[in-house]
Amino acid sequence: MHLDLSAEAVTLTQQLVDIESVSGDEAAIADAIEKAVGGLDHLTVQRFGNTLVARTELGRDERVVIAGHIDTVPLNDNLPARLTDTDLHGLGTCDMKGGVAIALRAAATLPSPNRDVTYVFYECEEVEAERNGLFKLSQSHPELLEADFAILMEPSDAVVEAGCQGTMRVDVLTRGERAHSARSWKGVNAIHGAAEVLTRLNDYEPRRPVIDGLEFHEGLNAVFISGGVAGNVLPDECRISVNYRFAPDRSEEEALAHMREVFDGYEIEVSDSAPAAMPGLSVPAAAAFVEAVGGTVNPKFGWTDVARFSVLGVPAVNFGPGDPHLAHKQEEFVPLAHLRSVEAQLHTWLGAGS
Amino acid sequence: MHLDLSAEAVTLTQQLVDIESVSGDEAAIADAIEKAVGGLDHLTVQRFGNTLVARTELGRDERVVIAGHIDTVPLNDNLPARLTDTDLHGLGTCDMKGGVAIALRAAATLPSPNRDVTYVFYECEEVEAERNGLFKLSQSHPELLEADFAILMEPSDAVVEAGCQGTMRVDVLTRGERAHSARSWKGVNAIHGAAEVLTRLNDYEPRRPVIDGLEFHEGLNAVFISGGVAGNVLPDECRISVNYRFAPDRSEEEALAHMREVFDGYEIEVSDSAPAAMPGLSVPAAAAFVEAVGGTVNPKFGWTDVARFSVLGVPAVNFGPGDPHLAHKQEEFVPLAHLRSVEAQLHTWLGAGS
Repeated sequence: MHLDLSAEAVTLTQQLVDIESVSGDEAAIADAIEKAVGGLDHLTVQRFGNTLVARTELGRDERVVIAGHIDTVPLNDNLPARLTDTDLHGLGTCDMKGGVAIALRAAATLPSPNRDVTYVFYECEEVEAERNGLFKLSQSHPELLEADFAILMEPSDAVVEAGCQGTMRVDVLTRGERAHSARSWKGVNAIHGAAEVLTRLNDYEPRRPVIDGLEFHEGLNAVFISGGVAGNVLPDECRISVNYRFAPDRSEEEALAHMREVFDGYEIEVSDSAPAAMPGLSVPAAAAFVEAVGGTVNPKFGWTDVARFSVLGVPAVNFGPGDPHLAHKQEEFVPLAHLRSVEAQLHTWLGAGS
Repeated sequence: MHLDLSAEAVTLTQQLVDIESVSGDEAAIADAIEKAVGGLDHLTVQRFGNTLVARTELGRDERVVIAGHIDTVPLNDNLPARLTDTDLHGLGTCDMKGGVAIALRAAATLPSPNRDVTYVFYECEEVEAERNGLFKLSQSHPELLEADFAILMEPSDAVVEAGCQGTMRVDVLTRGERAHSARSWKGVNAIHGAAEVLTRLNDYEPRRPVIDGLEFHEGLNAVFISGGVAGNVLPDECRISVNYRFAPDRSEEEALAHMREVFDGYEIEVSDSAPAAMPGLSVPAAAAFVEAVGGTVNPKFGWTDVARFSVLGVPAVNFGPGDPHLAHKQEEFVPLAHLRSVEAQLHTWLGAGS
């Protein structure tokens, strides 16, 4: 499969979409990208599995990372891509081959950007963290991700979304004592004991802290509940799985301490945790970027791979074409206007034509 | 396998226990019982599957049913029977071959009881209702169960337990609206909505009505709870399965109406229902029985097959050797003293030696 990096972003997005690349099956698209960027003299290209790193080595004062994942969620009768007057439809158009196309175009057409750029095209973002190409790279070659600033080209409605909220899942357990339900006064019902936990969730007032001028919005929600032994037995355990989305002014440790406080008196078990990312808009590279794209910045509520950059000490933002609410939906599409505006703003920031 | 109905109840119980008869596999024990009672001239014996009905036809003013199931729960390394100075141990000793042995002994050794007796030895009590031999008989030959009074020889600590509470299971549903948990304010959490349902359960005050001089004790308990879509999604449904144990002054219809009242405002689905049984101690045959066994009567909290007699208009009680709490336990046993006292009381009531 041949990718034409000189074609406009809409065409290139369509070419990328038509190469199936469900997570775990990215060899074909990685081959195509490797072939397309490998022929460019101004880039140093390295491949790790199906993850590609292409760097300019111009000795600029600043280095920035521009990254995007090349995998998609499973097919849902939504290939090949379908172009209308205003939008490109199909699996991966929104999440996130539109962003990948724009990054590839920048890599090919900007041989001498005003900042050194590390382009990262990575595998397995849609599956478990251990397989995530960006995570693996951060473990095996963290030096390749060193930078002053990073842009993750995930769909963000063509507006900068800065930082991201952290996410933690804890199981809150209530205990009881089994008894035959015909003689229920001999036992203690653990499901009834969950009333207090759910009441605390109902009464909880999520914080909305303002950080770097952005208002975040926390959330604390039960996402699973289970309990029960048999239809005639008082249950001795009930498990409430709670998802805490926390603003970037809290570390994972602080988030956990807060959970212990909210569920004081109950046993809790952490089943999942990922840190938040500070917006980091005060560093010069970020400020220049925000100015170049017109100054509008929104907070990012969902967790994204920007947090992986944050862990490495690199401020990062989401900035890409497409409505994030369409990600993973059968009817996903990307507006052509987004592809064009995001590309133009990125080129401006990287000094195209200057 | 030969059963010696002239042996004392302990020996006969041991013989019955040593014939394995897990539900669905009662042919051998039914054959042995059929052979043993089939040779008795004073009884008319009929067989339906592995259920046996043996009747005296003496033209007495009253007819009573004496019934027991011949199946057991699965083996649990607790056969053959083991006799100590005070107890007989092993699968089915308590639930309920001790009671079956006493009934068989009465059938064999009381050729001319003061009341006509219908002995019923039935299959598949420990499994689903559709396979229950007593249920099947009540459907196919209800005339064979016509009587003034019935005794079910289930373990009751050798004391009369009268009536039984009904049982109903309803699923209470709470509804919400899905949303990504990173933007929880866009949805409605159905698990959080269950707080109110659980609070009603916690606040519920079960009735303890006195019926025929017996204090019953109702119960309302969540036995299962479930809800959840994914770790990052606000759930749109939560299901709380509630078991209502109701006293025999309520019909199933009244019990359901009460559930609708308790869970007013919520959708409910009935998943299971079985009626209660009135103690029925005021009918002459029952009063005479209670007097013969010494006057002590307790209410029955758990559901048993006495309710099947109640449906047929026959007052019924539980009266048998063994502690009902040992039923289905590996270590079940029956005290020899129970076997002897229950047998003596039954014989007295049926006019032995008078």
